[in-house]
Formats: sequence, C-alpha cells, structure tokens
Amino acid sequence: MNEQNIKDSEKSILQLKQALRKNLEAVDQEIISRLNKSIPLINDIGTHLINAAGKRLRPLLTLAMAAQFNNYSKNPILLAAAVEFIHTATLLHDDVVDESNLRRGKKTANIIWGNEFSVLAGDFLFAQSFELMVETQSIDALSSLASASCKITQGEFQQMQIANKPETSIENYLEVIGKKTAELFGASCKSGVIISEGNVEQQNAAYDYGFNLGLAFQIVDDLMDFNNLPNKMGKNFGDDFKLGKTTLPVILAWQKSNPKEKKFWVRTLKELNQKPNDFSNAIDIFNKYNIFNECKKKTKEFISVSVKSLEKLPDSEIKNHLIGLANESIERSK
Amino acid sequence: MNEQNIKDSEKSILQLKQALRKNLEAVDQEIISRLNKSIPLINDIGTHLINAAGKRLRPLLTLAMAAQFNNYSKNPILLAAAVEFIHTATLLHDDVVDESNLRRGKKTANIIWGNEFSVLAGDFLFAQSFELMVETQSIDALSSLASASCKITQGEFQQMQIANKPETSIENYLEVIGKKTAELFGASCKSGVIISEGNVEQQNAAYDYGFNLGLAFQIVDDLMDFNNLPNKMGKNFGDDFKLGKTTLPVILAWQKSNPKEKKFWVRTLKELNQKPNDFSNAIDIFNKYNIFNECKKKTKEFISVSVKSLEKLPDSEIKNHLIGLANESIERSK
Repeated sequence: MNEQNIKDSEKSILQLKQALRKNLEAVDQEIISRLNKSIPLINDIGTHLINAAGKRLRPLLTLAMAAQFNNYSKNPILLAAAVEFIHTATLLHDDVVDESNLRRGKKTANIIWGNEFSVLAGDFLFAQSFELMVETQSIDALSSLASASCKITQGEFQQMQIANKPETSIENYLEVIGKKTAELFGASCKSGVIISEGNVEQQNAAYDYGFNLGLAFQIVDDLMDFNNLPNKMGKNFGDDFKLGKTTLPVILAWQKSNPKEKKFWVRTLKELNQKPNDFSNAIDIFNKYNIFNECKKKTKEFISVSVKSLEKLPDSEIKNHLIGLANESIERSK
Repeated sequence: MNEQNIKDSEKSILQLKQALRKNLEAVDQEIISRLNKSIPLINDIGTHLINAAGKRLRPLLTLAMAAQFNNYSKNPILLAAAVEFIHTATLLHDDVVDESNLRRGKKTANIIWGNEFSVLAGDFLFAQSFELMVETQSIDALSSLASASCKITQGEFQQMQIANKPETSIENYLEVIGKKTAELFGASCKSGVIISEGNVEQQNAAYDYGFNLGLAFQIVDDLMDFNNLPNKMGKNFGDDFKLGKTTLPVILAWQKSNPKEKKFWVRTLKELNQKPNDFSNAIDIFNKYNIFNECKKKTKEFISVSVKSLEKLPDSEIKNHLIGLANESIERSK
C-alpha cells in the first residue's frame, strides 16, 4: 500500500474528525477530567490506555449521529466519552483474558501493572461510563449501551468457547463478533440519535449502520492478523494464529481444506503445536483457496447493508462522510 | 457462642426476611431468570455464586427500605436483584485480584473455571445489573448505584495500596472500607427509598443507615478473620493475616506495639515472612492491648449513627427490624 492509498483509506474518517474536531476535543477533555478525579493509579492506567487507543472511532460515531440532527450539545459528548470508556474497559479485561503483552505497539496494562490492577481499572472505567450516561438523564441511551455491554461479555465468553475450533460455522462466528464488536458500534450510533431525539425508525437505522460497520471492521481486523501492512501501527502480527483464534479466514479455509490440510489446522490451531514455517504455510493455504478475497466479499456485503441503512437518516455533509468511512473500511485490509 | 447467642444475633434479620419473604423469593426468581437467559457457562458461574452467597443482606436492605413506604411492587425487586449482581460481580473480581481459593467454605469461581472466566462473568453480572436498573426507569436510583459501583473499584485500588502497611492511619482505612463496602450498603438502602418516592431527606437518611451499617459490618468481618467461630460457615480463618491485609485490629495493634512487637509486624505483615506460631502470637498481642474490644467500641459508634439516622424514616415494624439488624451486627463478632 503506497502513501496515496493510505490517504484514500482514511479520507472520510479524517474529514469527519475535522468536522467534529471541537466536540472530539471536548470528549478527550471529559475523559481526562474523569480520570483526574479518580485515584492516581487509575489515572495512570487510564491515561496509558486512552493514549494507546487508536482512532476514537466509536465516540466519533456517536458525535456524528448527533451532528446529523444538528445536536452539538454536551449530552452527545458525555455519551461519546462513556462509549470510549466501555471500549477501553473491554480492552483492559480482554488483555487479561488473552494474556496479551502488546496492543497497538505499546505494552499492555496487565504487563506493566499486573492483572489485578487491569481488572480493577476496567471495572472503574465501566462504572464511570454509567456515571457519564446518568448525567445525560436519558434512560433510553443508557438502556442501549447497557444492553451492548451485556452482549459484549457474552460475546467474549462465546469467543473463548469457539477458540481452537476452525470447524465453527460462519453463523456462529458472526454471532460472536456481532456481540463482541458490532453491538457497541451499533449502540454508539443509536445512542447519538436517541440523545438527539431522532424517532425510533432513525434510531434503528443508526444501529443498523453501526452494527454492520462493526461486523465489517472485525472481519478486516481478523484479516489484518495475516497481513503485515505498514499502517498496522504495531499490532502483533500473527497473534490470532498463535492463539488458535477462530476467525473468518480460518473457518473458510477449514471448510475448503483437503484431509492433509485439515491435519495441518488440527495441529496448529487445535493442538497449538506450531513450527516456525506454519504461519507462512497457513497463508499459502489461504492463497490457494482465495480466502482473502472471499473475506473481502463478505465485508462488502455488510458495508452495503450499513450504507443502505443511512437512507433513513437526514441528508448532510456528515452523512456523506459516514458513507465514505464505511466504504473505506474495506481498504484497510488491502 | 452458644445456640441461644446465635439465635439472638440473627433474630431481627430472620424476622425481616420473614416479613419480606415473598419479595425476596421474587428477587431470587429474577436473578435465576436473568442467568438462564445468558449463555450456559455464565449461568453455571452465576448460579454457583448466587448459591454460595450468604445472607442476601444488600437486596434485603433495598426491599426493607421500600417496604417502609409500603412499596412492594416490581421495581424494588429489580433494584434488589441489581444490587446482588453488583455485589456478586465484585466478589468474583475480588477473588481474581486476591487469588483466593475459598469463599464461605466453597471453592471460588477462579479456582473452578479460571481467572479469565471469572473476569468475564463479573463483567456480565455488572452489565446485567444496569439492565435491571434501566427497567425501573429511575435515573436517580441508577445514579446512586452507578456512583457506588465507581467507588467500590476505587476502594479496591486503595485497599491494594494500603496492603502490608499496618502504619496506615485509621482515617485512611475508614476511607477504604467506606468505598469498598459501605457505599453499596448505603446505595442499596437509598435506591429503595428513591424508587418509593421518599423525599431527599429520607433518601439521605436511608443512605446514612446503610453506609454506617456497612462500616460496622466490614470491621466485624475484619475481626472475624482472627476469631474461629462456629457460625463462620467456612470462611478462611486467618486469610487476611496471611496476605498481610491492613485491617482495623492490625492498625490499632501497630499503633500500641513496642519496638520488638513492631519488628514482628514488619516481618509477618510487611515482609510476609510468616512462621507457624505467628498467627497465635498476633492474637496474643491483640489481647495484650485489648484490641478486639477497641474494635467493637468503634463498631458500636457506627451502629449508633446508623440507628439514629432511621429516625427520619416512617415508623413501622420493618423499621424495628432494621434497628435490630444493626444492633445484632456487633453480636456476630462475639
């Protein structure tokens, strides 16, 4: 991917960030001030994570949905900060559960501070997210995000249950990433419309946009574990393979594999008995069956549903950026 | 403690449970049905914990406060279930943080299912508690319990920071147990009044009752680590000492100890270099300085504030049981 491509794949998200610059800065201020009010160690861990966090994509979605209704008030900012806190809390607990040591090129909190502090810091951020939501006085926005939080943990459970099982069905996999990733994307969008007094049809349209975008994002993330790209910013390449995680490329490859190849997957992904060349052998099998393209095709289907659901929302410059952002998400994996 | 004493120390709580029997059963039903709706493994862990849980004291307080306003409706039941979920979630994460292996005589979830599932199950129960609260549509009850949840994690952090430091001040210790334990007692009571449309003065009185009762309960719990009583139901005797936890008896003993005794505390609690006789040596020092009685005196002070704050609430049979319950809490440590 050359520099021009990188720019193209980020054009809309950058435009959206520019359009919502002031509100995004207010979200960061809100986050920092909440962490400052807590005890020093929570502040350290929180600041580490918030700085390590990437695109602020979820809060951006909340702000963008509100902006479509010309709502640039304090409430979407509070919800956006809450959404980022929920996301950050799940990352903290994820890293404890996965025993990770690197995220986006930085040491994970559990490595620096130990599992016990990561568990507690996640709990704090999660509880704090509900305090932020309470301040908006919107029980409906709160309901949407509480429901997503519940589903995230269910999804994490189910993800552990399908680990090392490349024979998992695509439907089962989609259910897992739906709960684990897409629900929060959906609720981030929906809560932005709720707080801006959009009607139920518009709330559901926003949810559908976010949910399908979330599915697409997760599939692209799964793909990126097998692609060492210059814009990956230090994500641990090959981590999912090392852990035997059940992701879409693996499921598709398993379905097409011949008996010899199935034995390879059993040894590497089910028994986790991996040799130095196994990762590149896995990629050879993916290439043989054109797996990457098939994953991209699936991604495009979700993006198409995502973009279509925006039809029910008001036309605006922001909406154009949201369409662009969805279409760009496929470019990330190129 | 003979059988008569045991009965005396539980008379009011049993009367309260009897008076609120139907509603308590409805809370249990609510808990079971929420766990059933989740995925099987969460159900297993949740059921294990809910069964292992002891007195259902916190939900009982929520129901009792509502009952003082003749509110026996669904909403206090939902809040009571939420309170029990928050409490259970903190127990799950506590056991991960403390690396415990036994709670109330049963194996802890982290030992049976592993830390990763305990972290996720705690997250699920916590998220589920907010879904329950949302159903009451009371943003004020939610606010009270969200704030308590935030403080619990701050208290847990601070508890880790004062661990192995018997030189901690009493004020600092009370701040820690205030956040870690008493806040949820306070919010359990307050939310019961909020949902029953009690006025702000009554809400605060209920909070004060619960908060001070919570402080007393925690101090009695700290004492019980040094008393092997027949009604302790399998709590790990001497666990706090083994971990070098900073509890009230330890702080008071440190303050009175001579240089030789201070060396003993440094070796056993700060350096965790413990020999077989150290625990009984510790108890000898407590007895020398009359530490247990001093702890009980402190407990009585909190109980007295607790009972006094009930004056602002309507007179009722339930209120008499609440007064009795508070007074009984000191008996537990005899």
